[in-house]
Amino acid sequence: MKSYRVKVIKTNRDNISVLNAAVVGATGIVGQQFLGSLLGHPWFRVSGLAASGRSAGKSYAEALQDDAGALRWYCEEQLPEEWANLQVQDAEKLKASDYDVIFTGVESDSALLLETHFAKTTPVISTASAFRYEEDVPLLIPGINSDHAKLITHQRLRRGWKGFVAPIPNCTVTGLAVTLKPLLDEFGLKAVLMTSLQALSGAGRSPGVRALDIIDNVIPFIPKEEEKVMHEGRKILGTVEAEGIQAASVKISCTCMRVNVKDGHTESVFVSTEKPCPPGEVKKAMNSFASVLDKSGLPSAPERMIVLQEDPYRPQPRRDRDTHGGMATVVGRIREDDAMKNGIKYVLVSHNTRMGAAKGAVLTAEMLVKENYI
Amino acid sequence: MKSYRVKVIKTNRDNISVLNAAVVGATGIVGQQFLGSLLGHPWFRVSGLAASGRSAGKSYAEALQDDAGALRWYCEEQLPEEWANLQVQDAEKLKASDYDVIFTGVESDSALLLETHFAKTTPVISTASAFRYEEDVPLLIPGINSDHAKLITHQRLRRGWKGFVAPIPNCTVTGLAVTLKPLLDEFGLKAVLMTSLQALSGAGRSPGVRALDIIDNVIPFIPKEEEKVMHEGRKILGTVEAEGIQAASVKISCTCMRVNVKDGHTESVFVSTEKPCPPGEVKKAMNSFASVLDKSGLPSAPERMIVLQEDPYRPQPRRDRDTHGGMATVVGRIREDDAMKNGIKYVLVSHNTRMGAAKGAVLTAEMLVKENYI
Amino acid sequence: MKSYRVKVIKTNRDNISVLNAAVVGATGIVGQQFLGSLLGHPWFRVSGLAASGRSAGKSYAEALQDDAGALRWYCEEQLPEEWANLQVQDAEKLKASDYDVIFTGVESDSALLLETHFAKTTPVISTASAFRYEEDVPLLIPGINSDHAKLITHQRLRRGWKGFVAPIPNCTVTGLAVTLKPLLDEFGLKAVLMTSLQALSGAGRSPGVRALDIIDNVIPFIPKEEEKVMHEGRKILGTVEAEGIQAASVKISCTCMRVNVKDGHTESVFVSTEKPCPPGEVKKAMNSFASVLDKSGLPSAPERMIVLQEDPYRPQPRRDRDTHGGMATVVGRIREDDAMKNGIKYVLVSHNTRMGAAKGAVLTAEMLVKENYI
Amino acid sequence: MKSYRVKVIKTNRDNISVLNAAVVGATGIVGQQFLGSLLGHPWFRVSGLAASGRSAGKSYAEALQDDAGALRWYCEEQLPEEWANLQVQDAEKLKASDYDVIFTGVESDSALLLETHFAKTTPVISTASAFRYEEDVPLLIPGINSDHAKLITHQRLRRGWKGFVAPIPNCTVTGLAVTLKPLLDEFGLKAVLMTSLQALSGAGRSPGVRALDIIDNVIPFIPKEEEKVMHEGRKILGTVEAEGIQAASVKISCTCMRVNVKDGHTESVFVSTEKPCPPGEVKKAMNSFASVLDKSGLPSAPERMIVLQEDPYRPQPRRDRDTHGGMATVVGRIREDDAMKNGIKYVLVSHNTRMGAAKGAVLTAEMLVKENYI
Repeated sequence: MKSYRVKVIKTNRDNISVLNAAVVGATGIVGQQFLGSLLGHPWFRVSGLAASGRSAGKSYAEALQDDAGALRWYCEEQLPEEWANLQVQDAEKLKASDYDVIFTGVESDSALLLETHFAKTTPVISTASAFRYEEDVPLLIPGINSDHAKLITHQRLRRGWKGFVAPIPNCTVTGLAVTLKPLLDEFGLKAVLMTSLQALSGAGRSPGVRALDIIDNVIPFIPKEEEKVMHEGRKILGTVEAEGIQAASVKISCTCMRVNVKDGHTESVFVSTEKPCPPGEVKKAMNSFASVLDKSGLPSAPERMIVLQEDPYRPQPRRDRDTHGGMATVVGRIREDDAMKNGIKYVLVSHNTRMGAAKGAVLTAEMLVKENYI
Repeated sequence: MKSYRVKVIKTNRDNISVLNAAVVGATGIVGQQFLGSLLGHPWFRVSGLAASGRSAGKSYAEALQDDAGALRWYCEEQLPEEWANLQVQDAEKLKASDYDVIFTGVESDSALLLETHFAKTTPVISTASAFRYEEDVPLLIPGINSDHAKLITHQRLRRGWKGFVAPIPNCTVTGLAVTLKPLLDEFGLKAVLMTSLQALSGAGRSPGVRALDIIDNVIPFIPKEEEKVMHEGRKILGTVEAEGIQAASVKISCTCMRVNVKDGHTESVFVSTEKPCPPGEVKKAMNSFASVLDKSGLPSAPERMIVLQEDPYRPQPRRDRDTHGGMATVVGRIREDDAMKNGIKYVLVSHNTRMGAAKGAVLTAEMLVKENYI
Repeated sequence: MKSYRVKVIKTNRDNISVLNAAVVGATGIVGQQFLGSLLGHPWFRVSGLAASGRSAGKSYAEALQDDAGALRWYCEEQLPEEWANLQVQDAEKLKASDYDVIFTGVESDSALLLETHFAKTTPVISTASAFRYEEDVPLLIPGINSDHAKLITHQRLRRGWKGFVAPIPNCTVTGLAVTLKPLLDEFGLKAVLMTSLQALSGAGRSPGVRALDIIDNVIPFIPKEEEKVMHEGRKILGTVEAEGIQAASVKISCTCMRVNVKDGHTESVFVSTEKPCPPGEVKKAMNSFASVLDKSGLPSAPERMIVLQEDPYRPQPRRDRDTHGGMATVVGRIREDDAMKNGIKYVLVSHNTRMGAAKGAVLTAEMLVKENYI
Repeated sequence: MKSYRVKVIKTNRDNISVLNAAVVGATGIVGQQFLGSLLGHPWFRVSGLAASGRSAGKSYAEALQDDAGALRWYCEEQLPEEWANLQVQDAEKLKASDYDVIFTGVESDSALLLETHFAKTTPVISTASAFRYEEDVPLLIPGINSDHAKLITHQRLRRGWKGFVAPIPNCTVTGLAVTLKPLLDEFGLKAVLMTSLQALSGAGRSPGVRALDIIDNVIPFIPKEEEKVMHEGRKILGTVEAEGIQAASVKISCTCMRVNVKDGHTESVFVSTEKPCPPGEVKKAMNSFASVLDKSGLPSAPERMIVLQEDPYRPQPRRDRDTHGGMATVVGRIREDDAMKNGIKYVLVSHNTRMGAAKGAVLTAEMLVKENYI
């Protein structure tokens, strides 16, 4: 059935057999963002919503109500009637085989158990970090390391799963990896030193960042974030082999901070490359690379993966995060960095809850459909 | 007369002959900060206030009034009666020889003219950049490069001035230089890569940063700031010679951003040193160095030049900027940086309008009094 | 020609003869918002852009460039090529008769001169306050006081103009008037006491509100704003007579404050009515009234003029300002107020730069086209 | 013993026998503010710290440590060694009779149980609402209704307690009551309509307001707050009788909102009085009243209870909240309100965690010491 569907997708999107999708962790903020990203999706139809036992049995609208009767729905998109009335299932009892694909947006602890279970029968696209560092698990960013998808075959074989787990990377590494890829291809990468100014939404809502802590302030530490950026960055930029990923040899160092911005991570990046990388060449490399998904036909792919900003005051998170639906990485202030050999420095903005989370996961699912893994 | 005064200072502070000081640009925000820093000062007595012709002839309180009759006084300290009633003079007509020292807080263009004029007879301590890059002008930070004061003798000789001009450095480089100095002394410096998250007050009030531009946002560019950090950093850390400063050989690269914080610049610093610099040794070096001004007897000197924070969530601008009256540089998150050879990374917070501006200038003046230059 | 056009509009919008519009003050923030509101408009085609002499002769894109070469275009909508290339005219020399309608977004002083001149030949829709308090000038809000348009005929006659001036009200009074109208109709109005929490964008960009002044703060005063709300509110809700408006007899009192919100004015309203006004009846009255423009066929009319929010934590400016394209007034927290006779209290959010400014002006223009005044 | 102590207090403060105080809920934010307010207090010596069982047995410094080893101490004042080393007791097992006074800063549910227990032997000053609406319990604000303290005698008698419970009012009503009192005395009060713009710190830290919810936003609802303001306001301004308080007959109506301000509640107040109240008379009444505690000798009493601001842009929370150590209510924008009979309107700022919470509670305790209740 799947190959048929895929064939259809390739030849005539209007006739595609729509795939059944479940969203797990549906009442949480990531789950809601999955729904926002899947609203009106041409390939995926959300037919299952799952959450913790507390919400199970209620309609989705009921499950979102707080004590005061208000709807705790945080997407800008209106909650459609169809989903509002869907009965929420207990995630632990979800019959995974009823779905063609499962999107999970749960905490890492739950993810380990649930995703292991779901993957026995069904492809799982996850925002959790539970499986990210397993050697048979790719960290996919379409256009950047689409070929890592091959590892899924090995994962299935090794684990005896019909499905698989494909986690997306941490939101902070995504924009970084997108901009490093063309530099790696053109100039080779030696070292990356990055300082991030991360948005509030990256910390979620439970409880998230306290207003009292961030007003008139910067918090210069985000637990575990820097390790994720360093490890995941090298894995994403690595080369796929039969049974795993050979991490890229680039050295990555970073300091991750929280700033009083709603959405959109800003990153100040200093890079040392193998070969000389004059700013003009860097811009050219990024610009050429930006079109990598232009002909992919993936519904969530941005018009351009990278958008260059010549305005020296840009990119700014508030003004640039929504570029191409929050799926583009906006880059500006590309300058020579003479403190390192073959040095280049720039600033990027990447939308942490679009490309860096749910919508990025949907893009990954689309690629895996096209490549016949789903 | 001056050597007498200094002698008194050294032996018995209570009997000191107080020095007459003028504040030029007194109605502006920097001028007000000078006044806040000089309130109740044991050595300096503000007996002259000067501003543009528009304010000349009015009492200081009148000059601060806006159209609605409200007092545009922005310091936390109450404006004392004595200054409120002082008549504001026209800066262009100020009789400099009436004062022992002049503090100027005006735009660079005006500074060039006014300071040239004042310095003929009187020592000038300035926050403007007009003279910073002259080869016979030191960029003093007490405790960091106090010996650069020697250059003043050459400056006087060369220009035929009885006074001199001593500008303080840019507010962003100050905290950086304070933390780099012990690293330079202990390990030698090869390269510094810094990203700053700068406070709103650094942009002043005319017009300063628009709320509309910075709400829910970061602005990744501050005109001319990065050049200042690079040039001034190397000059401050350089070695003084007969007729100028030999800049330090360290390479400095930076990206300067504006964030929605009232006061206090936060800087994410990556350093590569000549010799290995394990975090424990770095902390020790900073801690030892921190006491450099402890026995200086300078009234505005902080208890410690550098305060180390072991809390991983610190330093934060709002919570740490006022440490030791805003005169300490607070450092935290000291970690090895393995992306560069002998790499170390840390975060610092420095108060841009205290140590980084008027109060830092007053500290410099104090040192120059003690060293007999004023 | 005009009656023909209007006839066409009523019967078949696709065949409408498009009207030529000029935007005056085009480089300013209000002018830009006019352009954003007119982008792709089915009735109006922007064929003229005018600004001060400084911009005259440049292409619009050139005129928007700052010293660093960056485009100072602040709308979320992309600036279309067609306008980017249009040559900016000197507003003082604009040939008004070349246009069917002129939208002006300039300061009140300039407005008085320019609009007097333009109106001799051409209808002028203005965001300035210059003409608001003239007795032959209506303050139109479509759906609220559309019948006040009649006064235009008197205005033309009295002044000997072929065109006319129709200013829109102050942005703070708009949402208030929209919600008071159904209360006036159903219960009669005795007194209104309102406290506004106004957005930063209401202060414009020249210089607008300083970030330094509003961070961690509220500013409890906006010059001239309270007088505008009181006078304009009574005029809007008044009754039109042959040669002027008889102001409504309701007493309006208010305190206007600035808060750290980008867009969207929040207002806390206490009302005392002539007849009893239980909350249930108030909701019903607002809900019925909300459909007033539903069948108007005006392109910029919101689906509902008033949207009621039952969530007690709403309306919130960030989450509700964009309801129906920023053209709806969102009302919540409707409760009995027992401190006044027949008291009711509620909170509203109204988008100050959409319904409250340029887009509201476009809506007014649409109504005047439909009613044959343009 | 107590009368002796009090006698000493009255005649010679230096020789006072210091009272032993316990702080319950010591690890929480209110408990910390109690400690900040009691630091170096001349009459009270904190010799007991109590919290939940989780903290019991640890030193106070240990109890404040989070998982990362960082000290969760939020006061601006440095945590003194003496308290850092004090062993935290289990609040449920605290031996109340060891203390002369107990300050409790716990949630209302716990407060009901704990305070009932403590009061059997010891005076309890509380920030919780548990007892506020009991008829034998006064809601004291020194200087406003000091005579309500008489009710304590009745409370002791009725409940058979040696101690008593004296809760302080809600932080939002405090500044309001302080400003209404002189109006009540001079003009009589008919109706009060108030809109509050409340600070983040009023919501505490567990979890407090999410940054994601308040950035670029206003939240127009605070659960239960409005009821508290209405009930407590009338009780505070009421008259004490043998066995309870006769609430004032004034009608109070309000809308309470949260804004993005760290500390300091701003309130927009409209008042209708019995007798005419021209602005000049209102200012005079407030100014005369402001000195009510001037000769009280209470260590925490502000220099002035009310400070009038003539600057039309004031009071502002950030700039005015710390007036007289956060213990003054700053009032500005006093104007006639012609929408109500004998109407007056003004804006006030009151520090919600100083006068409105812990430090206000300490002031109350001081008054009760002086009046021989403690």
